[in-house]
Amino acid sequence: MIPTITAFERSPDRGRGLARDMRVRWALEEVGQPYDVRLLSFSEMKEAAHRMLHPFGQIPTYEEGDLVLFESGAIVFHIAKQHTGLLPDDANARARAITWMFAALSTVEPPIVERGMAMLVERDKAWHEERLPILEDRVRVRLGELSNRLGDADWLDDAFSAGDLLMVTVLRRLNGSGILEKYTNLSAYVARGEARPAYKRAFDDQLAVFTGKPPTG
Amino acid sequence: MIPTITAFERSPDRGRGLARDMRVRWALEEVGQPYDVRLLSFSEMKEAAHRMLHPFGQIPTYEEGDLVLFESGAIVFHIAKQHTGLLPDDANARARAITWMFAALSTVEPPIVERGMAMLVERDKAWHEERLPILEDRVRVRLGELSNRLGDADWLDDAFSAGDLLMVTVLRRLNGSGILEKYTNLSAYVARGEARPAYKRAFDDQLAVFTGKPPTG
Repeated sequence: MIPTITAFERSPDRGRGLARDMRVRWALEEVGQPYDVRLLSFSEMKEAAHRMLHPFGQIPTYEEGDLVLFESGAIVFHIAKQHTGLLPDDANARARAITWMFAALSTVEPPIVERGMAMLVERDKAWHEERLPILEDRVRVRLGELSNRLGDADWLDDAFSAGDLLMVTVLRRLNGSGILEKYTNLSAYVARGEARPAYKRAFDDQLAVFTGKPPTG
Repeated sequence: MIPTITAFERSPDRGRGLARDMRVRWALEEVGQPYDVRLLSFSEMKEAAHRMLHPFGQIPTYEEGDLVLFESGAIVFHIAKQHTGLLPDDANARARAITWMFAALSTVEPPIVERGMAMLVERDKAWHEERLPILEDRVRVRLGELSNRLGDADWLDDAFSAGDLLMVTVLRRLNGSGILEKYTNLSAYVARGEARPAYKRAFDDQLAVFTGKPPTG
């Protein structure tokens, strides 16, 4: 059965692939699972019909027969569990990969999102200039710790996993910020993720929604 | 094999059970798994020896033979997977319970933690008084959505699960704030979690670390 996911009708990041459907698209491409996409306007996301699927009125959702899921992390985990390729078979390695999924979303993403939100909604506040460096320091603490752990490895725990998939999408929010670029191993790590064929297919598909042109290739 | 978790040597919340080891203690109590606790000072948490276990220098960690995990969400998931009682057997119900685990940590917790951090570290800032209501509104949006979804049910998706366990620990951060109390079904939901015998045992054990007295009963 082909699952259906939801995504923004109009990309708020103009096709940069930072919305959370990108994670789900990437995971589906990694495992070779075709999928349908239903596009939603910002007002449709907040309507009762969509809130039946997603109580917080966001994207993405995932529908597969009777099953309805929300939360990109949970959807990626569901895909990884159903297919091979995103989580190792060895029980301990699998538990560690799942740990990186939670670390990406619970420990690394929040300060990055806070900085992004401040730049979006607090730009005109009197305190913005004083507060932004505090937020950026919080981001740097996490990046420094992550950089130390990654070292010169390709991925966070041996082979590429759903943990790396989520971590790369979290770090990508900092592309062009000048912050991520100071950690050369993390920059290379993000580039390594973005170079994966499955990533590129997912990226092109979400970009095609924005440009209105079918993906090339 | 009895696992070992780490916790704060000195409870920053004076035994209110808001540190993230509480989640892991509660999960272990729900499934009846005994465990050892190793206490860490704030400086020990940031030392290289602990960072080998936890790259972000935090608690809790979980050690079980060769396996080392961090991230409370991942540890609770690991416990839920190894034992019965925290995740339903039915595949779809299980995927939905896991969705609530991610929702608790990725969608509901971040604005609650941001508010808590502002009250802790921004109290003396010129902008605190203007910014706090903005943060509280962000919390209220999520609580309103969660309250609508919960309705008059006991738990988020039929039977109590690891999703409820995490959500209750997230919402407990608002106990006494006057914010949570406006959502009577959410207050009752938190109280329902706190009334579980496993919760009480976990709470008493973490409190005993703070008071230095062995738990009663």
